[in-house]
Amino acid sequence: MAIVLFTDFGAADLYVGQVHVVLDRYAPGVRVIDLMHDAPAGDVRAAAHLLAALTRQVPRGHVLMAVVDPGVGTDRGAVVMRADGRTFVGPDNGLLSVVAARATTKQLWQIVTHPPDISASFHGRDLFAPMAAAVATDDFPNERVKPVAALAVAFPADDLAEVIYVDHFGNAMTGIRAGSLAREQRLRAGRAEVGYARVFGEAPPGGAFWYENSLGLVEIAVNGASAREVLGLAPGQAVERVA
Amino acid sequence: MAIVLFTDFGAADLYVGQVHVVLDRYAPGVRVIDLMHDAPAGDVRAAAHLLAALTRQVPRGHVLMAVVDPGVGTDRGAVVMRADGRTFVGPDNGLLSVVAARATTKQLWQIVTHPPDISASFHGRDLFAPMAAAVATDDFPNERVKPVAALAVAFPADDLAEVIYVDHFGNAMTGIRAGSLAREQRLRAGRAEVGYARVFGEAPPGGAFWYENSLGLVEIAVNGASAREVLGLAPGQAVERVA
Amino acid sequence: MAIVLFTDFGAADLYVGQVHVVLDRYAPGVRVIDLMHDAPAGDVRAAAHLLAALTRQVPRGHVLMAVVDPGVGTDRGAVVMRADGRTFVGPDNGLLSVVAARATTKQLWQIVTHPPDISASFHGRDLFAPMAAAVATDDFPNERVKPVAALAVAFPADDLAEVIYVDHFGNAMTGIRAGSLAREQRLRAGRAEVGYARVFGEAPPGGAFWYENSLGLVEIAVNGASAREVLGLAPGQAVERVA
Repeated sequence: MAIVLFTDFGAADLYVGQVHVVLDRYAPGVRVIDLMHDAPAGDVRAAAHLLAALTRQVPRGHVLMAVVDPGVGTDRGAVVMRADGRTFVGPDNGLLSVVAARATTKQLWQIVTHPPDISASFHGRDLFAPMAAAVATDDFPNERVKPVAALAVAFPADDLAEVIYVDHFGNAMTGIRAGSLAREQRLRAGRAEVGYARVFGEAPPGGAFWYENSLGLVEIAVNGASAREVLGLAPGQAVERVA
Repeated sequence: MAIVLFTDFGAADLYVGQVHVVLDRYAPGVRVIDLMHDAPAGDVRAAAHLLAALTRQVPRGHVLMAVVDPGVGTDRGAVVMRADGRTFVGPDNGLLSVVAARATTKQLWQIVTHPPDISASFHGRDLFAPMAAAVATDDFPNERVKPVAALAVAFPADDLAEVIYVDHFGNAMTGIRAGSLAREQRLRAGRAEVGYARVFGEAPPGGAFWYENSLGLVEIAVNGASAREVLGLAPGQAVERVA
Repeated sequence: MAIVLFTDFGAADLYVGQVHVVLDRYAPGVRVIDLMHDAPAGDVRAAAHLLAALTRQVPRGHVLMAVVDPGVGTDRGAVVMRADGRTFVGPDNGLLSVVAARATTKQLWQIVTHPPDISASFHGRDLFAPMAAAVATDDFPNERVKPVAALAVAFPADDLAEVIYVDHFGNAMTGIRAGSLAREQRLRAGRAEVGYARVFGEAPPGGAFWYENSLGLVEIAVNGASAREVLGLAPGQAVERVA
């Protein structure tokens, strides 16, 4: 079992290390895996879809601490969720809701007790990391949570027909699961209209296409170049089916 | 106990991994935590204040290897420091001096013996990592150090009224501890003049403010936007109290 | 023993974390070291020279998973290589070939069996990580490989007289081993012509020079500034000896 981190804290910034310090203190000996720290900053909806896709890669039994939390310091809730064998800890702002909506089984708890010395701006370190550590060390903190029936903020289980992430190669992931799309379907995004290719090598050099990426999502790419640069793709852009 | 790294080697660059290889060799089984690798490059004074603020987050007993070292390859000294229960290893160029100046108890040793195959440009890997590993494995290297009374280069314990770091959200940390500042105090930095808000949500959308960040420092931010972009803030800028 | 990762997956991107999840599953308890994840993207030749230089820093016995793989999804081969006591796993596209060409002893196996659920675009996660884990856990997967006499794609052992990497300080590493170069030799790269200095401090402030870096390579730098910015250096540029 491991604690898996999914945040928008920035892989190169000074926040992730502080989370690691806390996890090491409260869950010594538990492996911590940095799944992603450059989730769409502040875009909870896009992050929720990315988290749902990435979750499939994480073995059951693991604890996922997921924090994209533009409302930190307000009265947004905080939750623990068991969904299909994995335990999630994070803000109740919709981030966990796509996972929840697609799960076969789930249980939810609201976090009701906050640590006394909690900061107003870094709940990743002060609230969620200690909670993830408690859960990961089989010390389920019953006294700090209460069962609830549903999340306070919930997005639907449906695909999100938008660019949700652009990787450092310039490939643009969408929130559309590729299994739902016929291979003949052409897509429009930004100034691009693209057809399907199975792999990069099936497109001509410099040619744009969509394919099923390694997370099972529709991704728009250019063979040998950056779709971000060539096609002007960016997170948040709508992706439309060409009739 | 863990070895905690604070450097300007760049989280995405090829230096940190080499340090990890060395630590794994000389301190196998000891957890290594990457606290920060994008400390202000070459700005020892700003880095010293950031280190002092971050140190509060690190449990006593841990070993901190701190390297911001523009003078590597010159005759600047190298030190081991025990301060308030934590052990620091790094260059004697002022980097550890703010921690030292604020510590209740401290002991200092100069590193006098260098490994035979040391490079001229990467003491993080060749000098400080083996030393941190030795200290962390309770094998205090008495034969490689000698006690000294004081650091060769020392900055004062006082706050630094400058922007010392801008995070990837664009928030600008200063070297001013928030406890020293009345909440009514207005501040000027770059083209901004800002008042206090407790949390982001207390400022109007797009509004600039200062607040006490999760390290206890005064930080200048804009609600829902980047203070770097909106206010033109950058490391090194002076922060003034508005009379 | 550790698994050491050398890839172009991007330290800040979402690929490295997925590799860690797989390694944790198949090689639990084995330390994983992120040596470098911003190897020259898609530039296999430059990456091969960088890998050869970095390999010297990795203790014998370690397993290196090396993936710079622009041809993923095509029919390029995949290999396991034992060279001078280290085991490498990666694509057979030249990436391991400089290490191979310089090794005293080596053994090669082609990977012939692919996991059933392998993706077309992320062999780092689906093919190489499980193989690296198998090798690292002393469970050499004889049934998945067959011995071969040579790599399918091989670059020569010679130095590469090009800029192969520019670090975040702006220093430009070349593929030239410094031991092969007389200290009197002047070099030309981009708009720079530079002489030798032992350390940064030997050059005047703002002065450009070449020196032997901590990997034993010729590196072009500017004292107190970025060679990338001042001299316009970038990966791929030729480096010439001035007659």
